[in-house]
Amino acid sequence: MHNEFQFIKIIKDRTKQTKDSGVVKGIGDDAAIIRPAKDHQLLVTTDLLIEEIDFKRDWITPQLLGHKSLAVSLSDIAAMGARPRWALISIGLPKEIWRSKFKEEFYEGYLNLANKYNVSLIGGDISSTPDHIVIDSFVIGESAKDRSILRSEAKPGDLIFITGSLGGSALGLQLLNQGIQLKRANSRRRTKHNAYQELLLRHLQPEPRLSWGQTLSQKRLATSMIDISDGLSSDLMHICEESNTGAYIEAAKIPIDPNLSALDHTNSNLQLALNGGEDYELLFTVSPKRAHLIPKEIEGIQATCVGEMTDETNRVYIKREKRRYRLRPEGFNHFKN
Amino acid sequence: MHNEFQFIKIIKDRTKQTKDSGVVKGIGDDAAIIRPAKDHQLLVTTDLLIEEIDFKRDWITPQLLGHKSLAVSLSDIAAMGARPRWALISIGLPKEIWRSKFKEEFYEGYLNLANKYNVSLIGGDISSTPDHIVIDSFVIGESAKDRSILRSEAKPGDLIFITGSLGGSALGLQLLNQGIQLKRANSRRRTKHNAYQELLLRHLQPEPRLSWGQTLSQKRLATSMIDISDGLSSDLMHICEESNTGAYIEAAKIPIDPNLSALDHTNSNLQLALNGGEDYELLFTVSPKRAHLIPKEIEGIQATCVGEMTDETNRVYIKREKRRYRLRPEGFNHFKN
Repeated sequence: MHNEFQFIKIIKDRTKQTKDSGVVKGIGDDAAIIRPAKDHQLLVTTDLLIEEIDFKRDWITPQLLGHKSLAVSLSDIAAMGARPRWALISIGLPKEIWRSKFKEEFYEGYLNLANKYNVSLIGGDISSTPDHIVIDSFVIGESAKDRSILRSEAKPGDLIFITGSLGGSALGLQLLNQGIQLKRANSRRRTKHNAYQELLLRHLQPEPRLSWGQTLSQKRLATSMIDISDGLSSDLMHICEESNTGAYIEAAKIPIDPNLSALDHTNSNLQLALNGGEDYELLFTVSPKRAHLIPKEIEGIQATCVGEMTDETNRVYIKREKRRYRLRPEGFNHFKN
Repeated sequence: MHNEFQFIKIIKDRTKQTKDSGVVKGIGDDAAIIRPAKDHQLLVTTDLLIEEIDFKRDWITPQLLGHKSLAVSLSDIAAMGARPRWALISIGLPKEIWRSKFKEEFYEGYLNLANKYNVSLIGGDISSTPDHIVIDSFVIGESAKDRSILRSEAKPGDLIFITGSLGGSALGLQLLNQGIQLKRANSRRRTKHNAYQELLLRHLQPEPRLSWGQTLSQKRLATSMIDISDGLSSDLMHICEESNTGAYIEAAKIPIDPNLSALDHTNSNLQLALNGGEDYELLFTVSPKRAHLIPKEIEGIQATCVGEMTDETNRVYIKREKRRYRLRPEGFNHFKN
C-alpha cells in the first residue's frame, strides 16, 4: 500500500505539463506556481462534495466520482464564459477506502476530464477521515479583460435561454434512491432500461457546457449567465437578485429531458425541470436585439428561449395554460429553515 | 436560523474589498474574478482539515479553528516567499453545528487573520455533512517573477536555518490528549499553568512566518524553503529529495520551544522537535557566502543555523555528542504502511 507521499508522486508523474500550460511548478512544493496570460482575469471557484449528502458510495463508481468532482467546478467556469486552466483537488478518505483501488480509479476519471479540456492538475491535499469520503474541487479559469459574464448584468426585456434539457439529473437521482443501479449499456436502442441508464448518467456524469460559455463570451452575446446547479427556480432567482430584475418563463417552452417524456413521468416532469437541480446546463440572458445571433446548437447541444427578464425586482413568474403563477425558489438548500 | 444563501450574504457583507485588493468580483457569482498584478506569478495552495483527524471539537474554539484553517495555508505561501492575496474557504458542517453559533465564530477567527495580512476572502462553498466538521482552505499568493523560493534549489554546502522554535505544537497536542484545556490566561507570569497554555496555543493558533518568507525572497537570501508542518525530519527530507542533496543537523543547535525546557520534558524534547510537526516555522537554506546577511530576527522571531546541506543524496544525519545518526523521516503521515 502506498502512503500519501508515494501516491502524490504517482499522480505528479501522470500530470506532465505542456509548454503552454502556464504551470511554472506543479505538484510537489508548498504551493503550485502558475503564470497567468497578460491582461487576463482569473476566475476562481470551489465545490465541496460530501459522501451521504452529495453522493452515495454504492451509487457511483470512483471514476465517475472523479469526473463529477471536476465537472461541477468546470461548470462554474463555463458559467463565467471563461476557459478553465488549472485545478486542485483535496480528498479525504477513510483508511479502508485508501487501501482499495478507489484512489487510482478516482484520479483516472478526474484526469480524463481534465485532459479533455486541457486543464492542468497542479495541487491538492490528501487526508484520512473517520468514516466518509470528502472531496473539495478547485478550478482556476482565465478570460480576457471584461469578458467574464456575471449574474448581475441582466436587463428587463432580455430574453432567457437555457442550454440542453432539464430534469434528467433529478429523475436520475430518484432512480438511484429507488435502488436502480448503473450498468454498462451495450445497446443503443431506446428501451426503458436504456432511458434509465441515461438518466443515471445525467446525474452521475454531468458534462460542463464550456463551449457554450466561451462562445457567448467571445461574441459578447450574453448579458448574464449562471449554471443550473441548485435548480432552475433557484438559479433564475439568483440572476434576478444580483441584477435587480424579475423574470417570467413559459412552462411549455422549458426543455424537458427527452428521457422523462419517454418514461411517462408527465405529471412531475415540470417540477423536476424547475426544481430538480444538478443538470449543470447554462441559463443566460440576451438582449432581444442580439438574440438572432445565438447559435442553434454548439457541439450537439441546443439552446432554448424560455422567457424574459422584467422590471419587477425579485419576482419570478411561470406562465402555464394562459395563467401566471409565482415561482418560488425551491432548489436544493443544505440547511432549510 | 439562516439558510446557507442568507449566511453567505452576511459573510459577503463583511468582506468589503479595498481598491488595491485586485478583486474584480468577490463572493456572489459562479466564480470569483481576480486581477493579478502585471508580470507576477501566482502561488496556489490548499489544506484539508478534518474533525477527529486534524482537530477535535472540544479542544479548539470555533474562532481558533477559523484562524488555524487560514494560517496553515498562509504558512505554505510564506514558504514560497510570497505575499498572500486571495482566499477561499469550503466548510462542511453537521446540521446541529450549523444551528449553533459555530459558523459566526469560525468566520470571525478566519476573517481577523485574513484582515491582518490583507488577504481578501473571495469565495468558498458550504455543505452539510453527516457527522463531522470538514474544512478546506485555499489561498492564492503573488510574487514577482522568478522570486518564488522552491524546495528544489538547495546546494551542498548551503547552511540550514530554522525560524522560531520547534516541538511546542507537538507537546501542546500531547497536553490536549491528556485532557488539559485552553483557558483565557490573565497572568503573564511564566507559571507551569501558563507554559501549558502557551503550548496549547502553539498547536491551536499557529502564526504564519510571512515576514520572514517575504524578506528572504526580496533579498534573494534563501536557495530553498519549506514550512515545517509534517515535522523537521520529514520536511528536511522533502528538501533533500527535491534538491537531490543530503543534509546534517546538529542536535545541540535545534531551537527547542522554551516552554518544553520549562516543563522538564528534556528526554523527549529532541524527539518532539524532530518529529512533532505542526510548528509552522520555516526551514530554509542559504549559500554560506550570504549567510551573514540573514537578519538576526524579524518581528521578534529569530532564525537559527542548525546544519548544512551535503552531496549524499537523500541522506540526512543528526550529530549529537560527537556521534552521527541517520535521521529517518518520522513526521506525520495519514496512511502509514
